[in-house]
Amino acid sequence: MGIFSETKMDALTTAKELAAQFAVDAKERDRQAGTPKKQKDLIRQSGLLKLLIPKEYGGSGESWYTVLQIVREFAKVDGSLAHLFGYHTLFIADVLMYGTKEQQKRFLTDTAENNYFWGNSCNPLDHRLFGKVEDGKIILNGPKSFSTGSTDSQYLLIAWEQKGDSPSLVRFGVIPSNREGVEIIDDWNGMGQRQTGSGTVEFHNVEVFEDEILLGDYVTGAPFTTLEATFAQSVHLNVFTGIAEGALLEAKQYTLTKSKPWYTSGYERAIDDPYIQSKYGYYVIRLKSAQALADQAAKIASDSFDKNLELTIEERGEVAVIVAAANVLTGEVAVEIANGIFELMGARSAAYQNNFDRYWRNVRTQTLHNPAEYKKRTLGNWFLDNQYPIPGGYA
Amino acid sequence: MGIFSETKMDALTTAKELAAQFAVDAKERDRQAGTPKKQKDLIRQSGLLKLLIPKEYGGSGESWYTVLQIVREFAKVDGSLAHLFGYHTLFIADVLMYGTKEQQKRFLTDTAENNYFWGNSCNPLDHRLFGKVEDGKIILNGPKSFSTGSTDSQYLLIAWEQKGDSPSLVRFGVIPSNREGVEIIDDWNGMGQRQTGSGTVEFHNVEVFEDEILLGDYVTGAPFTTLEATFAQSVHLNVFTGIAEGALLEAKQYTLTKSKPWYTSGYERAIDDPYIQSKYGYYVIRLKSAQALADQAAKIASDSFDKNLELTIEERGEVAVIVAAANVLTGEVAVEIANGIFELMGARSAAYQNNFDRYWRNVRTQTLHNPAEYKKRTLGNWFLDNQYPIPGGYA
Amino acid sequence: MGIFSETKMDALTTAKELAAQFAVDAKERDRQAGTPKKQKDLIRQSGLLKLLIPKEYGGSGESWYTVLQIVREFAKVDGSLAHLFGYHTLFIADVLMYGTKEQQKRFLTDTAENNYFWGNSCNPLDHRLFGKVEDGKIILNGPKSFSTGSTDSQYLLIAWEQKGDSPSLVRFGVIPSNREGVEIIDDWNGMGQRQTGSGTVEFHNVEVFEDEILLGDYVTGAPFTTLEATFAQSVHLNVFTGIAEGALLEAKQYTLTKSKPWYTSGYERAIDDPYIQSKYGYYVIRLKSAQALADQAAKIASDSFDKNLELTIEERGEVAVIVAAANVLTGEVAVEIANGIFELMGARSAAYQNNFDRYWRNVRTQTLHNPAEYKKRTLGNWFLDNQYPIPGGYA
Amino acid sequence: MGIFSETKMDALTTAKELAAQFAVDAKERDRQAGTPKKQKDLIRQSGLLKLLIPKEYGGSGESWYTVLQIVREFAKVDGSLAHLFGYHTLFIADVLMYGTKEQQKRFLTDTAENNYFWGNSCNPLDHRLFGKVEDGKIILNGPKSFSTGSTDSQYLLIAWEQKGDSPSLVRFGVIPSNREGVEIIDDWNGMGQRQTGSGTVEFHNVEVFEDEILLGDYVTGAPFTTLEATFAQSVHLNVFTGIAEGALLEAKQYTLTKSKPWYTSGYERAIDDPYIQSKYGYYVIRLKSAQALADQAAKIASDSFDKNLELTIEERGEVAVIVAAANVLTGEVAVEIANGIFELMGARSAAYQNNFDRYWRNVRTQTLHNPAEYKKRTLGNWFLDNQYPIPGGYA
Repeated sequence: MGIFSETKMDALTTAKELAAQFAVDAKERDRQAGTPKKQKDLIRQSGLLKLLIPKEYGGSGESWYTVLQIVREFAKVDGSLAHLFGYHTLFIADVLMYGTKEQQKRFLTDTAENNYFWGNSCNPLDHRLFGKVEDGKIILNGPKSFSTGSTDSQYLLIAWEQKGDSPSLVRFGVIPSNREGVEIIDDWNGMGQRQTGSGTVEFHNVEVFEDEILLGDYVTGAPFTTLEATFAQSVHLNVFTGIAEGALLEAKQYTLTKSKPWYTSGYERAIDDPYIQSKYGYYVIRLKSAQALADQAAKIASDSFDKNLELTIEERGEVAVIVAAANVLTGEVAVEIANGIFELMGARSAAYQNNFDRYWRNVRTQTLHNPAEYKKRTLGNWFLDNQYPIPGGYA
Repeated sequence: MGIFSETKMDALTTAKELAAQFAVDAKERDRQAGTPKKQKDLIRQSGLLKLLIPKEYGGSGESWYTVLQIVREFAKVDGSLAHLFGYHTLFIADVLMYGTKEQQKRFLTDTAENNYFWGNSCNPLDHRLFGKVEDGKIILNGPKSFSTGSTDSQYLLIAWEQKGDSPSLVRFGVIPSNREGVEIIDDWNGMGQRQTGSGTVEFHNVEVFEDEILLGDYVTGAPFTTLEATFAQSVHLNVFTGIAEGALLEAKQYTLTKSKPWYTSGYERAIDDPYIQSKYGYYVIRLKSAQALADQAAKIASDSFDKNLELTIEERGEVAVIVAAANVLTGEVAVEIANGIFELMGARSAAYQNNFDRYWRNVRTQTLHNPAEYKKRTLGNWFLDNQYPIPGGYA
Repeated sequence: MGIFSETKMDALTTAKELAAQFAVDAKERDRQAGTPKKQKDLIRQSGLLKLLIPKEYGGSGESWYTVLQIVREFAKVDGSLAHLFGYHTLFIADVLMYGTKEQQKRFLTDTAENNYFWGNSCNPLDHRLFGKVEDGKIILNGPKSFSTGSTDSQYLLIAWEQKGDSPSLVRFGVIPSNREGVEIIDDWNGMGQRQTGSGTVEFHNVEVFEDEILLGDYVTGAPFTTLEATFAQSVHLNVFTGIAEGALLEAKQYTLTKSKPWYTSGYERAIDDPYIQSKYGYYVIRLKSAQALADQAAKIASDSFDKNLELTIEERGEVAVIVAAANVLTGEVAVEIANGIFELMGARSAAYQNNFDRYWRNVRTQTLHNPAEYKKRTLGNWFLDNQYPIPGGYA
Repeated sequence: MGIFSETKMDALTTAKELAAQFAVDAKERDRQAGTPKKQKDLIRQSGLLKLLIPKEYGGSGESWYTVLQIVREFAKVDGSLAHLFGYHTLFIADVLMYGTKEQQKRFLTDTAENNYFWGNSCNPLDHRLFGKVEDGKIILNGPKSFSTGSTDSQYLLIAWEQKGDSPSLVRFGVIPSNREGVEIIDDWNGMGQRQTGSGTVEFHNVEVFEDEILLGDYVTGAPFTTLEATFAQSVHLNVFTGIAEGALLEAKQYTLTKSKPWYTSGYERAIDDPYIQSKYGYYVIRLKSAQALADQAAKIASDSFDKNLELTIEERGEVAVIVAAANVLTGEVAVEIANGIFELMGARSAAYQNNFDRYWRNVRTQTLHNPAEYKKRTLGNWFLDNQYPIPGGYA
């Protein structure tokens, strides 16, 4: 069903091989929750963690488009690993968006050389982590919830507020995950996306040095430096799209091999029932529309990344619009498919050991972080009043 | 939100008290699965198991309408217990529909006296249990899956096929659950409705005596004796309706006490956001429509039960039509609400410990047993071609 | 499909006979627009205009429930006549709600004796008609748009604002339609509901005498006197329900007699295609849910009317809630069915001469007057915050 | 909102200028129905009729993609002219698909030189037109309904069956519209797409000469020669997409300039109501998804056309799949938007003179010709069973 055609085959082939390995025990790992250490190590070994890192820093210099393609590939079989990989690369992108050249060189070279995995502790809606300036350093204290990827990570992208700032300003930095005072609690326990390590990080007098603070061009307000929320959403929407595709493929497999035709249908195979065909056809259409818009958004986002500081306000607005639209659509489609496939598989598909509900639990959980309603308003306002989405934590 | 008004208050009050107790640990018991022994005992002690049993046999002589009202009340907090209670009473109704007067007296008096719980082993789509005639008895061998209520039961309504019957004919009987050779496997493990005890029963040379075979008027083909599938559906649809109501009430409670307004909304309380109000309003409308049709169906089904052998073919057709319609509608509404409430509660509502996904898992699981598609076709055929649903295992 | 069972048969039988006559040229009259004089005269002759008028004033003393049943019966074949009849009786109800006993006696006796038809000029969103006090009379000047039923009427329920009132207060009165200075423009030209005579009335120095001003208990604020908007909505929702039923019956007739099976379907009759059956079945379910909620709302509204000044604030709130819910649901269902039937009839059903689009144009037009969104918010607010709808022009 | 970017600007600019002229009286012409002679002449003069004709025959040699883009542009303001232009070019494509080189040269050179407009008389579901062989010619007698574009045309693509063929075989040919015996009845009178001239053509002893019969490679069964139904659908789906966009733009204009905020909303402008924004945002998402899939389908269809006889069976299958999916999606979206915009504009938008219902009437009418249900089954069958759509009159 994929429709990416212009991507480097190597990275995609590698990703598909990884996905095949993730698939082996994805449903068991969903029950266990915790950290998919073995699978993260496989990603480390694959070299995919340096996909977006420029060649000059030892990376593959691949496009954001390719990154998203791989997010989608992983999400077909494991929403958590897709999220972890997508977010890791998002944090790399963040450094490229608003780190200094020195920071880019330092952090990304280190990451490329060692295949380091990045996590974060940046939740913009949690206002409990504060820093104070002391001897040219920042001292952080407090917790941050929803710190996706924090467990089993080597670097953390972090965000805090600083007492005394008026108005309050979110500041960003990069620290090694094992910096003294960083306590990664590993208390994430969601009904879905259970292996994303999205728990709390507690900061106990954690030092952040000056050269770890990300200022870059962010303070200049260049449109390129305000892309992070849009890029985060572009990760999400490809997780959604992949989950939708994975759910439909799993349902297909079940319908083909296990589903019985309804006893009054008059058919020998479930797939001969026109209703089964029609409903699958409907989901195919829904999926193709999600994929088409996701592809379009991926291209535009990838282009915007390549434009770097040349990106105009209008172009920044256009990418925010298309990504917001694709985010809502793919989330809706994925929830709909993950909810609906049971009707196509039949009563026995609801057995606990099948764990087919994980698709729904995953996408239902992850879609909540970017309320569709507010994206719709933003899009309506853009359409009616020519207002581009206002850059912020979620747009 | 309830709109039953003509019911005996006593039974309903008792049911509400029981429901309050079920609610205490419903979400933990969902995780444990297995048999809700303590809760079933509370129902036994309450006297509700004899609700439908005629007074002449020591029962309460209450209506099917009251039974359904209580199913709905239980389902608000615990879909499994609602199903168990509804099915128990369905099996009582079955004896009244096609048992002989002697059988009714014997089985129902015994049940009323001892507050016995009934289960079943009748799955019409499982054709592996066979009987053969031997010395005026039937000897049963084979398994039956989906035997809801079989664990912790005293009586079993059973169904089997008999070798040599041509055409194949499903035969029904009643036996004590502890009859020699009956092995209740307790292997039910669904993603939802996890405490319904809907596992396999294995029959090893189980004897069924002549006076345990339900023939009654069934062989005469009186419309009244063909109501069982419709009554089973009326149980299901009230489980759905109750789950929908319970889910919406739980969401309301969460939104009122824990949900934060979206950070750009400009409101201090989530419930002041017009979007939150509007979406709740939409679900209220959906719920009210489900309740209204469920009420109407309950009244018509209850009347049909009271008509007993006077029930005409047309009346039998009308009850099958309205119950089928209500079954599809309430299932759709319950799935929709159970899926949608998360958007009204926000990201933190997806925490595992909340276990709010159990509403969706419950109703998603239970709706699969009566495919909506085939009910729609039946209704379309009735509307277009004046054909009443053909009596059978699912209509 | 009707499920009203407790109604006086006489009135209903009469209404069905009238409906049969309306049906003869309903599609041609939709093209002509203007006033259905001949059909209004048939209603006059039938005696139905006095249905709600108490027997002491020469009326039939029938219930509001019966009125709504007849609105629905008319709407199956002609949305405009249903609206005209429903609104006429609404205005009678208004006089009973907030007219004095003297006014009730005078206006209703006159109406019953002469089978007078009432129209109105009350649009609460049009603030261009003003009155000033002069010699104990009110002198009205200005226009009112959306004056449904004003053409070919004998009485007009009117509403105006009075200069100098602070805050602005809407005042109501009753005048003969031929009062000097009343110019009924007949400029209504909607895309649907084309024969409702909902045009502009211009008032040129129109006198309203003191005994024509409706004060009654309205000023006391008794809940009963604030029911008018809810009753107006209950008329609308039964127009919607009737249109939905009429559209589905017309589609059925066409499918049975003219639709060809799709050429690859393998069926000889369109109605044998499982898709056709299933989609009709779906609409039957939607229609039955609309009817069930409409019936429930009709009963509660009718009861509230019978309670008269005994009606409590809570009861007033409950009727407003259920009517709002039914209004939204029935509007949605009617639009959905009127839009969807074409897929069940096939390409040739879109011929202009069939005029099957009038169902959609009618209900699409009429639903716009009570925005569903605001009713949903009201219902959500009620569910979440225990706030009853605030009495006003639309609740 | 458009997202075509690789197209020749000249043709598109011309199309936009034409569209602006069509827009002037589109709503009046919808009422008149009949033939839009003046507008067809403007298209003739613009040179767009030869857009797809190869340069060697005097045409522009543009791509099918550009054709579809222009169909969409026209459809924003006038569904009928979009259909007429799209079908004209489809018939040109047909000659290129299964005409001989000689026929291509002859018919297309003539068309390019004289800016001739093509119509058709090919309805595959009308089996009343028959030919018999006589003196090396075919003599046609009988009628064909749904002959879109037949009025005011210079060439007709025709299809007939031949008595004696066993099995029955549809044969195709090209004749001048003024061939003796051709009676173009002009009896089209649909509720929508009213100026498409889709009436009946009667053939009275019409001669078709041997060199007018299209055999080409069709008899060889090359995949390229079986694309016509898919290409017809690709025209339809761009008509749908354009109508959706046009309807939403017209609604926007109305909301911006005429809609009043709901009186309890607390906003001064309708567009400040979060509900209005959100609903527009939702439609923007729906439209963007339709456009994205339509674009993707247009590219794949255009590529398939360029491959000519090199097109493989698999490629033919893929284009049929994506076009079918886009056809269903865009039809659904267009019907939904055309139906829903009224809620965003308010009660007064339903005035007859606005004629905003024409969007709904147009798309509702045109979607009926390719039942979505059967496309869904085809897509489901492809997804489940790897079966490509079987070439035929509608796939």
